[in-house]
Amino acid sequence: MSTILPSDLPVMSLAEVLDFLEREFPQMHAGGRSYHLEAVGPLSARMRMDHHERHLRPGGTVSGPSMMALADLVLYAAILANIGPVALAVTTNLSFNFLRRPGATGLVAEARLLKLGRRLAVGEVAIASRGSDDLVCHATGTYSIPPA
Amino acid sequence: MSTILPSDLPVMSLAEVLDFLEREFPQMHAGGRSYHLEAVGPLSARMRMDHHERHLRPGGTVSGPSMMALADLVLYAAILANIGPVALAVTTNLSFNFLRRPGATGLVAEARLLKLGRRLAVGEVAIASRGSDDLVCHATGTYSIPPA
Amino acid sequence: MSTILPSDLPVMSLAEVLDFLEREFPQMHAGGRSYHLEAVGPLSARMRMDHHERHLRPGGTVSGPSMMALADLVLYAAILANIGPVALAVTTNLSFNFLRRPGATGLVAEARLLKLGRRLAVGEVAIASRGSDDLVCHATGTYSIPPA
Amino acid sequence: MSTILPSDLPVMSLAEVLDFLEREFPQMHAGGRSYHLEAVGPLSARMRMDHHERHLRPGGTVSGPSMMALADLVLYAAILANIGPVALAVTTNLSFNFLRRPGATGLVAEARLLKLGRRLAVGEVAIASRGSDDLVCHATGTYSIPPA
Repeated sequence: MSTILPSDLPVMSLAEVLDFLEREFPQMHAGGRSYHLEAVGPLSARMRMDHHERHLRPGGTVSGPSMMALADLVLYAAILANIGPVALAVTTNLSFNFLRRPGATGLVAEARLLKLGRRLAVGEVAIASRGSDDLVCHATGTYSIPPA
Repeated sequence: MSTILPSDLPVMSLAEVLDFLEREFPQMHAGGRSYHLEAVGPLSARMRMDHHERHLRPGGTVSGPSMMALADLVLYAAILANIGPVALAVTTNLSFNFLRRPGATGLVAEARLLKLGRRLAVGEVAIASRGSDDLVCHATGTYSIPPA
Repeated sequence: MSTILPSDLPVMSLAEVLDFLEREFPQMHAGGRSYHLEAVGPLSARMRMDHHERHLRPGGTVSGPSMMALADLVLYAAILANIGPVALAVTTNLSFNFLRRPGATGLVAEARLLKLGRRLAVGEVAIASRGSDDLVCHATGTYSIPPA
Repeated sequence: MSTILPSDLPVMSLAEVLDFLEREFPQMHAGGRSYHLEAVGPLSARMRMDHHERHLRPGGTVSGPSMMALADLVLYAAILANIGPVALAVTTNLSFNFLRRPGATGLVAEARLLKLGRRLAVGEVAIASRGSDDLVCHATGTYSIPPA
């Protein structure tokens, strides 16, 4: 970490990350667009998830797998924006605490990288329902960064 | 645990669990049927995931979120079969280690409950590609069981 | 959560929590005092760990188990301060990401509760070397709160 | 994994691993010997923990941190035995589910490696009280293997 200066980050703009994701991950839009990257920053990213019928569970709550996909995507976007498209990070570990049942509304996920090393990146994600400060899910993830 | 005798488990048959899931979780088939519960047993369950285009990622690998949904579903089915449909368990924690990239083939998930208490159930899931013994993903999960 | 107002928290003062820990957990000082609770607040607590020879590993780094004990203790203190000594929370899950090797110096752990429900509390801990902002370890924990 | 044949594993004998741990980790015996490596095998290891006063908690139960140290040590030993002392693996992630309160007795930990790659090793540990089959703790861990 000692050689990474936050002032150099991120190395990709929001538009560049969006272009990359469109090109390389069209599957993230399977079933209709619902994951929207809103911002990238130094060691961070923010993604919105609009809710569709297919994300809901009995009782009108957003499904766990939808939130898990959201967490993985926003962490991936944060790493991509901050290391550039030179290497494709591979998810090695994801851990989730489900805190409250979200209502049938959109979600906002804020990712923050806790470590951005040469071989591993680790980050956390806080997910809340839109317009609320109460977290519905907290996640941590580890990604392996292939050799250049 | 002291009052649960394995000989009393599971309390629901495979057909009963399948009926329950069809009725209560039609969303698990959103986009087409791919998750198939194959067996339930004492503190255990097995589920198959057929792969569809929407589950794939660049390079022809099954996506992480598809495997996470599979792990959550098979653990839920194992708990349901072993405590009965009296209460709906709620996922509180899921943790995943992604071990190898699966090929573009179906997956088999074996769930085993490590604890089945009155308030909490904890289990692990081993996921392999069909016809292979090498694990592609290992998961653990904790579920909160509401008061009767 | 809806009935807990942050303005009512914590329900125990730092002195009360310290008294309780001295009385109920003398083992936390086995081998010599090194864990010092410094503050409790609404859904939070801070604990310092002085380093002793027995906490070190080859290369002069603080051992993982010392950090794990620190994380568990500070989360426990945060819960205790915020629910009171009416019930003894039981650790059900702890998950750690080790981010950088700490030097042979003391550590500071900041705990924040993400959820304080009637049955479960969930929190996260950020651990840094004293005088540094770089995290050496990040932890999340879940605690079961027995019925009153 | 494709190049590692189980018939070649482990690459170190129990005596060699014990010698290495004595030499490189004398701190594991701080406060008195209680962790005893009993066996190493292909992708596996077994370690016993004798209980001492300093490992106990109120109610006569073995402390969580003692079990966490045990899990970390037995996974480390399993990796060491199977890759040899050429590189020192570094713990990057540990995740624990505490399943039952152990009594005031010794523990046995069985480690199994789920993946032994060139850069990462992942394993799980099952901990039970001596003479019992009921797990008291289940852990998973990830270790980074430095370049040769």
